[in-house]
Amino acid sequence: MQESRSLVRLTAYTDGVVAIALTLLVLPLVDTARDAQTESVRDLVREHAGDFAAFVMSFAVVSLFWMVHRRVFDNLVDVGEGIMLLNSMWLLGVVFLPVPTAVLTYEVNQGRGATLLYMANLVLIALSGLLLSLRIRDRVPLQRPGRSEAVDRAVRRGVIATSAMVATLVAALFLANLALPLLALMPLAQAAAERRAHRRHHPGAATDRRKG
Amino acid sequence: MQESRSLVRLTAYTDGVVAIALTLLVLPLVDTARDAQTESVRDLVREHAGDFAAFVMSFAVVSLFWMVHRRVFDNLVDVGEGIMLLNSMWLLGVVFLPVPTAVLTYEVNQGRGATLLYMANLVLIALSGLLLSLRIRDRVPLQRPGRSEAVDRAVRRGVIATSAMVATLVAALFLANLALPLLALMPLAQAAAERRAHRRHHPGAATDRRKG
Amino acid sequence: MQESRSLVRLTAYTDGVVAIALTLLVLPLVDTARDAQTESVRDLVREHAGDFAAFVMSFAVVSLFWMVHRRVFDNLVDVGEGIMLLNSMWLLGVVFLPVPTAVLTYEVNQGRGATLLYMANLVLIALSGLLLSLRIRDRVPLQRPGRSEAVDRAVRRGVIATSAMVATLVAALFLANLALPLLALMPLAQAAAERRAHRRHHPGAATDRRKG
Amino acid sequence: MQESRSLVRLTAYTDGVVAIALTLLVLPLVDTARDAQTESVRDLVREHAGDFAAFVMSFAVVSLFWMVHRRVFDNLVDVGEGIMLLNSMWLLGVVFLPVPTAVLTYEVNQGRGATLLYMANLVLIALSGLLLSLRIRDRVPLQRPGRSEAVDRAVRRGVIATSAMVATLVAALFLANLALPLLALMPLAQAAAERRAHRRHHPGAATDRRKG
Repeated sequence: MQESRSLVRLTAYTDGVVAIALTLLVLPLVDTARDAQTESVRDLVREHAGDFAAFVMSFAVVSLFWMVHRRVFDNLVDVGEGIMLLNSMWLLGVVFLPVPTAVLTYEVNQGRGATLLYMANLVLIALSGLLLSLRIRDRVPLQRPGRSEAVDRAVRRGVIATSAMVATLVAALFLANLALPLLALMPLAQAAAERRAHRRHHPGAATDRRKG
Repeated sequence: MQESRSLVRLTAYTDGVVAIALTLLVLPLVDTARDAQTESVRDLVREHAGDFAAFVMSFAVVSLFWMVHRRVFDNLVDVGEGIMLLNSMWLLGVVFLPVPTAVLTYEVNQGRGATLLYMANLVLIALSGLLLSLRIRDRVPLQRPGRSEAVDRAVRRGVIATSAMVATLVAALFLANLALPLLALMPLAQAAAERRAHRRHHPGAATDRRKG
Repeated sequence: MQESRSLVRLTAYTDGVVAIALTLLVLPLVDTARDAQTESVRDLVREHAGDFAAFVMSFAVVSLFWMVHRRVFDNLVDVGEGIMLLNSMWLLGVVFLPVPTAVLTYEVNQGRGATLLYMANLVLIALSGLLLSLRIRDRVPLQRPGRSEAVDRAVRRGVIATSAMVATLVAALFLANLALPLLALMPLAQAAAERRAHRRHHPGAATDRRKG
Repeated sequence: MQESRSLVRLTAYTDGVVAIALTLLVLPLVDTARDAQTESVRDLVREHAGDFAAFVMSFAVVSLFWMVHRRVFDNLVDVGEGIMLLNSMWLLGVVFLPVPTAVLTYEVNQGRGATLLYMANLVLIALSGLLLSLRIRDRVPLQRPGRSEAVDRAVRRGVIATSAMVATLVAALFLANLALPLLALMPLAQAAAERRAHRRHHPGAATDRRKG
């Protein structure tokens, strides 16, 4: 039951990288704060309302991906090289996210290119997460005892998240950045899908639902 | 009594995000250091004295909010999704703070807009902290045994902090950035209010006061 | 068997520094995202394809060095001042890496200077890692019991990595940035070398290979 | 003997802040890497040799201060509000250090102003460290059992470090940035002073010297 030092360290390292990527998202906004030298704060806020929205969206996306990652890793007692490599791929996607976020912030003509870049990045993160879940399912000795159900659930969640990201990417081909609000539906859709799957598969087990 | 892995990880993640947000506060000053190419260091320091003050103020604000967060989370043995979401909202406020700090730094005409943006950000952090405390009070199974008093105290503190922030926000409508020094009174006011409430509610219990 | 507080703290600190250095690698790309103000995203991506590649390369390099560091430190129960100093030298190399990465990103004429600077930085990291391994081999009381083989293996790996980096540095004298793709061969070469050495030295021991 | 959650969290938070401040030191150099757009890498390195030196110096200073901090906190089992506040003051000094480092980097005429700002920052860090040590000495219940000697040693070290920093600050009044190389002597002087004091006070105790 005792988690290995490698797992502890990989987890702490991952959390550190995510925490920094999350914080770097704000840098383009710190940069636009310079405009306060020449215009009123009211104009600044009005003009950059869309950039504030892009920041909040990326912040929410990273936070949600991190919560999913936490739940997936909660099923482990140890990690191997394969999980480490897939985790690095996941981190690459998270670390890169400030770039498409900044493109969304700076882009003026609001074509679909910025949205496609952004969604491609989210697909990379979701797909790496799915591959991580599949790898964990295949490596039973690395799992905490009695966690096979949670591992299966993580795989199902990964499939849903990846599909939703790909669907939004395709929608962005036609709708450009109007597709982005669809992402707001995702946590709701996923919660609904999970609840249904959960009830179908194990009608009695609801232990980690009762908690706040 | 053993804290859950989710709690450990959420705490470490939160600390990481706060540590980075704290450090990013210095970036606009690193940026102004470029002026050393064209003017003497003495002029640089004199000219940017207000920006140094804004940095120290935000540093103090984040440090205090972090200490409060630490005390609130010290009452927990586990966390649920609700606490995670509220914690993300709290983190959003902390991560965003470098933006209004930079606006205060760069703004020239010192209107009240920059101060209102800054105070609105502090209200968001304080309010998220209060909601976190209320959520924790409602989720008794997540609390460490024998901590109900500390949980109540955290709620009282959250109410005081939020009220003080809203009051300063209102004051800023009339006083602009002259309202900001009021924040310096807050720790004193809060310490006084706490000491009084503490004595009134549990005249004998002073265990966590004796320590350094 | 219990690891000392100094080791725990040095490890966490190292992970933090690496996590940040990894994330800072993306900053020049966030900076180039500003060009989205004046050109299409498609042009932006095409124009900066080489910079994206430089980012991914440095990300992979830091990730691999970190995995090696993790394995080396997994053999310790405590650390001394010598290991701390060598670890600081290793960290200095990691923290500096964003500079040559940015030089590779911004440099236009693609001379060999940028590649030499980059490879010199990698040699510094690999060499510090090798010195760390040697120091650990010489300090038996700091080692976890039963880890002498793993310690020897770490030294062998350090020699291979340092040699490969020096070889690529020399190759860059003639090939300029065409030498960089050679780095992609390194993990493969190292894996092969390790597998051979592993079989030769301890034909039966394969415990940490079975895991994920 | 078990360290409190507050201590664990304060330590992790401090390590995070230091790790980030350490990494931010490289940002002005990443910025100068842009000059690679217009000049050769050889010229870039030659021109910015002094800036590279400033980076390495600040890196070494932060690393040494962190090692001292680690040793001081190694004597604790718990922390109180006083230690937290003094620790925040120490962190303020560390977080601010990128600013004088950037001033040293960008400043052209090499007057003494930049050096005085830099040394004033180091005095702030050293002084906060000394006050932390004194506070810990006065709070015996927070100390790990049997650590009173190490606590006294930390105070002595703090006095030496603060004195050396003040002396260099005074020297900078006359020598400008020629005083900075004096800092390189400090670790040697301190090691010598410690060894002498160590032998004088406890001729037999050398346990933490034998380790690596």
